[in-house]
Order: sequence, then structure tokens, then C-alpha cells
Amino acid sequence: MTHTVAEIAETLGLEAVGDTSIVVEGVAEPADCPPDRLAMAMKPEYAEGLSQGQARAAMLWDGADWQAMGLDAAILAPRPRYALSALSAAMDPGQGYPSGIHPMAYVDPSATLGPGVSVGPFAVIGANVEIGAGSVVGPQVHVGWDTRIGPDALLHAGVKIGARVSIGARFIGHHGAVIGSDGFSFVTPEPSGVEKARASLGDQGEAKGQPWARIHSLGGVTIGDDVEVGVNTAIDRGTVRDTRIGNGTKIDNLVQVGHNTVVGEHTLLCGQVGIAGSVSIGSFVVLAGQVGVSDNVRIGDNVICGGATVVLSSIPAGRVMLGYPAMKMESHIEGYKNLRRLPRLIRQVEELRKAVSKAGESR
Amino acid sequence: MTHTVAEIAETLGLEAVGDTSIVVEGVAEPADCPPDRLAMAMKPEYAEGLSQGQARAAMLWDGADWQAMGLDAAILAPRPRYALSALSAAMDPGQGYPSGIHPMAYVDPSATLGPGVSVGPFAVIGANVEIGAGSVVGPQVHVGWDTRIGPDALLHAGVKIGARVSIGARFIGHHGAVIGSDGFSFVTPEPSGVEKARASLGDQGEAKGQPWARIHSLGGVTIGDDVEVGVNTAIDRGTVRDTRIGNGTKIDNLVQVGHNTVVGEHTLLCGQVGIAGSVSIGSFVVLAGQVGVSDNVRIGDNVICGGATVVLSSIPAGRVMLGYPAMKMESHIEGYKNLRRLPRLIRQVEELRKAVSKAGESR
Amino acid sequence: MTHTVAEIAETLGLEAVGDTSIVVEGVAEPADCPPDRLAMAMKPEYAEGLSQGQARAAMLWDGADWQAMGLDAAILAPRPRYALSALSAAMDPGQGYPSGIHPMAYVDPSATLGPGVSVGPFAVIGANVEIGAGSVVGPQVHVGWDTRIGPDALLHAGVKIGARVSIGARFIGHHGAVIGSDGFSFVTPEPSGVEKARASLGDQGEAKGQPWARIHSLGGVTIGDDVEVGVNTAIDRGTVRDTRIGNGTKIDNLVQVGHNTVVGEHTLLCGQVGIAGSVSIGSFVVLAGQVGVSDNVRIGDNVICGGATVVLSSIPAGRVMLGYPAMKMESHIEGYKNLRRLPRLIRQVEELRKAVSKAGESR
Repeated sequence: MTHTVAEIAETLGLEAVGDTSIVVEGVAEPADCPPDRLAMAMKPEYAEGLSQGQARAAMLWDGADWQAMGLDAAILAPRPRYALSALSAAMDPGQGYPSGIHPMAYVDPSATLGPGVSVGPFAVIGANVEIGAGSVVGPQVHVGWDTRIGPDALLHAGVKIGARVSIGARFIGHHGAVIGSDGFSFVTPEPSGVEKARASLGDQGEAKGQPWARIHSLGGVTIGDDVEVGVNTAIDRGTVRDTRIGNGTKIDNLVQVGHNTVVGEHTLLCGQVGIAGSVSIGSFVVLAGQVGVSDNVRIGDNVICGGATVVLSSIPAGRVMLGYPAMKMESHIEGYKNLRRLPRLIRQVEELRKAVSKAGESR
Repeated sequence: MTHTVAEIAETLGLEAVGDTSIVVEGVAEPADCPPDRLAMAMKPEYAEGLSQGQARAAMLWDGADWQAMGLDAAILAPRPRYALSALSAAMDPGQGYPSGIHPMAYVDPSATLGPGVSVGPFAVIGANVEIGAGSVVGPQVHVGWDTRIGPDALLHAGVKIGARVSIGARFIGHHGAVIGSDGFSFVTPEPSGVEKARASLGDQGEAKGQPWARIHSLGGVTIGDDVEVGVNTAIDRGTVRDTRIGNGTKIDNLVQVGHNTVVGEHTLLCGQVGIAGSVSIGSFVVLAGQVGVSDNVRIGDNVICGGATVVLSSIPAGRVMLGYPAMKMESHIEGYKNLRRLPRLIRQVEELRKAVSKAGESR
Repeated sequence: MTHTVAEIAETLGLEAVGDTSIVVEGVAEPADCPPDRLAMAMKPEYAEGLSQGQARAAMLWDGADWQAMGLDAAILAPRPRYALSALSAAMDPGQGYPSGIHPMAYVDPSATLGPGVSVGPFAVIGANVEIGAGSVVGPQVHVGWDTRIGPDALLHAGVKIGARVSIGARFIGHHGAVIGSDGFSFVTPEPSGVEKARASLGDQGEAKGQPWARIHSLGGVTIGDDVEVGVNTAIDRGTVRDTRIGNGTKIDNLVQVGHNTVVGEHTLLCGQVGIAGSVSIGSFVVLAGQVGVSDNVRIGDNVICGGATVVLSSIPAGRVMLGYPAMKMESHIEGYKNLRRLPRLIRQVEELRKAVSKAGESR
């Protein structure tokens, strides 16, 4: 895959300057960029590396002085990180999964595969499955009974999708992602210690062991268009209704989404986020890595939670949160500062006690 | 699968009222319940949705006024959530894994499969494996050398079980669960910085890098009856003895159980819980999502830890804990309140210092 | 596999005493050690169990009085836990993966397998892959296009390696580990709420929803020699450069390593550690279970972070850290003690306020 600088700029709808006929066959970081690659120098601090590499052409920010950097050509972008999106799509050589239906795949005769669908070796497509045109089903993937997947899906090696799941267009499932597993839902014959401790905020009464009875998950999972689900992430089916993920939402690796949970549109769930059951999450929400959300909590639109925030109660729309338990980020930072003032405060109170006690004596 | 309301009530051992000959073919939430489904209206707040749906019959709580809700029939349950367990089992259509030994499975000739065992496509059953009657081995499952699994197991697509694992009856392994992986056990030639920092509570002495030597895991994993292991969860084998999971214990998705750890009976480990090595956990314990437990810690029977609790030291039986580090839940709530009082306290001490200083001057 | 005590001691380079011709066929814990096994009694507290078992021989610490323990033979080790490394390697029966290229594996004709490489059933080896001599590719493993793996690798059942990954010698990949998945990298057309909240420490300005555009990962993953990657762990490829893991680094189960991250040599990442993108971690670092590291953070050599530490900013070399957010371990312990002193402090300030107010009145 080789491209001229002019071709790349045209694909991106950006301005190219200098000798735009230079041919590049990939991208590289500035400091170790060979002459036949496009250097990604999207901020002044990255551009400093150009002098150590051999780049002839680079992607730069609007107004960058490319000639002073010793380059022969440049692509100028008003928001270079955004331009990287289209550039990286054009340059991606992909995973090389074989095309066609592999002879060592098992496709149930009742399944319907759209035109151009490929199915890799040792993949399993169950009964009554429908997969839309142009989808790539990687090796060792499993798609369960009665599941529907829209066009142009990419299921990487080892994805497992259960029965009665419904997925929209342009879905990407990363290696080992699981969609449509049973929810973790158990009940005791009598109210359990957990039910009592929650009601009393900490008192489970007389602890009395009871075995757990399983509640089967009869619902499915419904996923919108343009959704990604990361490596080894688990999305459980609902108990009665479906678990739902809205259009444009992106889920990272090793995330847990519990049964009945509803996630809105264009929301990001970063690595190792854990969402319990029956949670409602709005649109344009960002939960950073390792955030945890308790069951039955509601998180409003546009909420941002910083890394490892523990959400034990609902959050109104638009808040920026951090900490365990979750607080407004400014309160968390303030609380942390106050905690560091404590040793001095303890000393001051000790001094005051002495002074007041002495004053009392001297009076 | 269609059932009359009378049949369902009989299966559940519950009272049915009204026109119990009504036929339903599944369950639904009240607000979007079609006429041929049973509405799950197990609390008054759920029953409010009935007026938006078309349900003719519902599962309700004992004493509910079903006629006032416009229903033609109802099943009344003293603890409806508990009744949902048996109801959901009766209604579950399952995953549709094919029956019989699939021609594209690999079963070692020395393996022993009980009557009615099914093995899905691309599954691997190793040498000397024994699998009990009626078990379902899903597609792409791996069962290692010398492993024994009891009757009526359900191994969902992609479960991986290592060599020399022993599992009781009615086991459920969810997609991608791994049982019998090597423990994470490494040792340095001289005492490591970690050993020193632990002994001194924070001082690792002169930091000196040493490479890590691997300790192989020679033990296995022993799992009791009626255990579930969730999606992509990992249970490591023991170093010398077996890692052990007791009867009736349920483990959710993405949980880590370290080598040598012993978990009692009827304990719940919720999503993303992490248990280090050589931990002992009692029976009827509940560890909520993302709880972490340090190595060599002991957790007594009936302990409950709230979401994301970080357990760095042992916990006596019956405690309800929360926080990082783990505290009694009431102390955690109190500590958090005190933290929010700090800004006022700091102001008060400042005022006192001024008052006392002025009083000193004026004296 | 049977060995005499003398043979084992010779393998380990340690001293054997007593009747060293005793034959053992495995190891056991002291309290349930049969006569034909070697008891692992590496500390005085473990040796107490010997009287309950039937061990004739044991591994003991240097100078232990083995005859007083009723043993017929012993192996004495100056650091017994270190000796366990070589002992466990000698005693490990392994997983029993079949040798040779299994007829139900799919190996692309352009792949190059070194002498003695075995490939298990339903494994996939992609185009132009190179795998070094003596490597074991377990069942249901996937190795992507153009990937190179050094000699003596062990890929357990279900490992998934993507395209263009480069791995050194003696690699161990545990079940379901994924190496070379796409990074979680998305960008909005205009600066996002996250970008603004980070810049302002908590204020995202007027929340304005924007869809996310995907940045493809064009880099690969480069892994050194003697690295282990745990069960269902995910290591993402880099955006432009490679994600890198140094020689001798060991990674536990369910760990997330984000795109572009660089990890040094002989570092331990314990279970469920989460590393965001573009992080730099030094050599001889130990991150305990569930530690989280924010993106673009730098962690120096020899840093130790205790369980569940949340690293939101860079850490200089040699520090021992704990807490959320990460603090020096001694400060964390001090802070926690101070928090517990707060109720008393609040009472003292209240008393002082009364005393000072009364003194003011009486003056």
C-alpha cells in the first residue's frame, strides 16, 4: 500500500504543501521515521523528533513551519489528531483473515449470510443466524442460535456471541469478546444478609446462610450501529427485557456490562470498567478505566468519571466525578488536599488545647 | 414452549387466580407485555407499567389486587423474586448447542463420556478425561488431560479447562472461563524489594533489580457441586495443594481466583473480583463487584464486602465492609462524612487560633 | 515421573541428608503428604504439619533438625522458596498437549515452523508466520498474519495473537490471552468534554455531545525474551509505534496493557492491573493486583505499588506506593490513621470553641 502525499491529503480533505508527489508506504513516529514513511508530528513537542529521523514528509498542525523542519512536504491539519482517524483507516493493512467461507468452518444450513460475508476456520454459525453483507467472521468465532448481525461487521478471532442477540451495522467485536452470556442473578428463599445490610447501611442482622437459587436470563442483548466491544469484554443478556447498547458507543477491553443495563449513544466505557445489573447510563458519557458502577444506579448524559471512580449512587447529567465513593472532581481534589493538611491541623488543635488550658489556669 | 397459567403455577407450587387456562409463551416486562406473555410485575412499582402493556396475566406479590390492575389471571407469590428462579428455569429456551458428538470435535479415544453427553464443533476433550451423564460441552471448549467433570454440566462456547481439574455435579462454565491455569508465582534469588517493603510497611531498602524465577503450579483445582464460573473468569491451579471452590458457590464474569485459594460454600464472587494467592474465604460470603483481596488474607463466614472494597488484612466472620482499605461499613460512611466536615473544621481551628492569639495579646 | 531424593537434590544443586535413595513421585503439603511424596516444609510453621502426614522426606530450610521431625531424608535449602522454582519445573507433568501438527489444525502454507513445533487441534497459523523451534501451539490458538514467535514458546489453549506481533524466546501465553488487539483510541471533531475537564481539573465547560471517530492501530506489539502473559489478558497494538514489553517481564491474568505503552524488563504486573495508553513503566517494577495507571504516566524503575493503587500521575524510581490516588505507602498509612483520629479532633475543636467563647464572655 503506497500513496503519494497528495493522495493522502485528498482522502483526508486537507491541505498538502511542498513536493506532494513523494510516495510513502506507511506512517512512523518522527524520531524513527524512514524516508518512505509519513511522520506523525501532530504537536510541536512531537516535531522535535524529526531531526533524529529521516522523514521527508510529515503530518503537522495548521500553520506549522514545515520547511524550517527540513521537510520536503507536509500535510497540514487544523485538528491533527482528528485527521489521524481517516489517515489510519486508509493505512490499516488489517488482520488478513481469509475471505470466503472456510471449509473448516461450521455454518448451520438454516443460517443466512449476506453477499461477501467471510467465515474463518473453526468458526461456528448457529441455526437461524443472519449476518449482513460484507461482514468478516474471524477464525474460532461463535455466533449463537437466532442471532442477527448487521452489515459490515468485523468479528475478530475468538469472539463469542450467544443466542438471540441483535446487533446493528458496522459492529466491531475484538478477540474473545462475549455478548449474550447469562446474567449473574441469584436469590435466596428468605431475605439475604445483603438485602438487610443495604436497607440498614451496614447491619445484616443475624447472619444466616442460605443457598442461592439461579434466575435464568430470558432476555437478549440489543446493540445499535457503530458499536465496538473490546477484548474479552462480557455483556450479559437481560433477565426479562434486553440489555441495550446505543448507537456509536465504544467499549474497551475486559469490561463487564451486567444484565438489564441500558447504555446510551456515543458513550465510552474504558478498560476494565465494571457495570452491575439494571444500571442506566446516558449518552456521551465517558467512564475512564476501572470505573465501577453499582446496580440500579442512573448516570446522566455527558457525565465524565475519572479513572477508578466507584459509583455507588446516581449522578446527574453533566457532572465530572472522581474517587471512592464518587465525588465531584473538584471536591475530590479539595478533600485530598484537606487530608494532607490533617497532620498540621492535629498539631494546631494540640497547641490550642495547651494554650487554652494554660489560660484557664492563669485566670 | 407454551404453558397455561395453571401449569406454570403448579410448577412453581404457587396459587393461580382468575382464568388460569390462558396460554402464555414467555415472560415480559409489564409496560411492553403482549397478550400472549406473562408480565413480571413483582413489586407495586413494576405493576404500574401494566396499564401501558397488553398483559392478560401477571406474576404478582401475595395479596395483590390483580382484578383492579385489569388482568384476567395472576400467579401470586409470597416472595416473587424467589419464584422467578423456578419460572425462569422453566421458560429458558437455552443456547441451542447441537446434541450428540459433533463430527468436527476432537475427543481423545481414552476419554470417557457418560450417557447423553454432547460435544460441540471444534471442542477438544483430552486424554483420560471423564465427563458425567447429560453434560453439554459447547463449541470450541477445551477439557484437558485427566480432568473429571460431574453429571449435568453445561460448558458454554469457548470454556477452557486445564489438566488435572476435578469438578462436581451440575457445573456451569460461562463463555471463555478458564479453570486450571498456572498460578502467578515467581521468586528472586535474594529477598526482593516487595518482601522488604511488606516487612517494613513501605521501605524496600536499597532497590536492587533481580530477575524472577518461575514456580510451576503442580496442584490442580477442585470444584464442588452446583458451582458457576462466569465469562472469561480465571481460576488458577495450586502450587502444591489444589485451589478449592466449595459447593454452591457462584462466580461472576472476569473474576480472578489466585493459586492455593480456598473458597467455602454458597459464596458469591461478583464481577471483576480479584482474589490473590493463598487466600481463605468462608461460606455464605458476598464480595460485590471489583472487590480485591490481598494474598494470605482470611475472610470469615457471612462476610459482606461492598463494591470495590480493598481487603488488605483478614476480616472476622459476619462483618459488613466497604472502602479502601476495607472498614466496617458504618465506619466508612462515618469517615466519609467527617472528610466532608474538614473544610469547616479547618476554618474553625483558624478562627480559634486568631481568638486565642488575640486573647493572649490582650492579657 | 519418579526421582530419588539424591537425584532431586543434585538437580537443584542442594544438599541431601539421610536415606537419599528414597523414591518420590511428586510433592505434597506436609499435613497430607503420603510416604511416596516429598513434603514441602520450607518454613518452621509449615513443618508443624509433618506430624499429621506420612512424609519420609521433605524439603527444609538450611540447618533444620530433620531427624527430630521424624524424617528419613531431607533436602536442605538456604532459600527454600527459590529452590522450589527448579524443583517445580522438574516435577511439572505439563498440560499434555499432543505433539506434531494436528490434522485438524489450519496452518497457512506460507508459515514457517521450526523443528519440533507442535500445533494442537483447531489452531490457526496465519500467512507468513514464523514460529521458533520447540514451540508448543496449544489447541484453538490463533497466530495472525506476519507474526514472529521465538523458540520454545508455550501457547496454552485459546491464546489469540494478532497480525504483525513480534515475540522473543521462551514465551508463555496462558489460556485466552490476547496480544495485538486494536488500541482504544477515539477522537471527536471538536475538543471533547474529557479534554476540557482534564485541562481545568474538573470543568468540561458546556457539555456538547459529539460522536467518536476511530483511530486505527497501525503499530504492532514487540515482546522480549522470557515473558509470560496471563489468562485472558489483553495487550493492545500501538497507534504508530509498537507497544513494547521488555525481557523477563511477567504479566498475570486479566491485565489490560493499552496501546503505545512501554514496559521495561523483569517487571511484574499482577492480576487485573490496568494500564492505559502511552504509559511508560520501568524495569524491576511490581504493580500488585488491580493497580490502575492513567494514560501518559511514567513509572520509574524499582517502583512498587500495593494492591489497587490508582496511579494518576508519574512516580519517581524506587518509590513504594499505595492508595487512591497513589501516595507513598507511609503517607497512606499515616493518612488513614489521621482519618480515624478525626472524630476525636472534631470533639476537641467543639470543646475548644466552647471554652474560648466562655473565656471571651467572662473577660
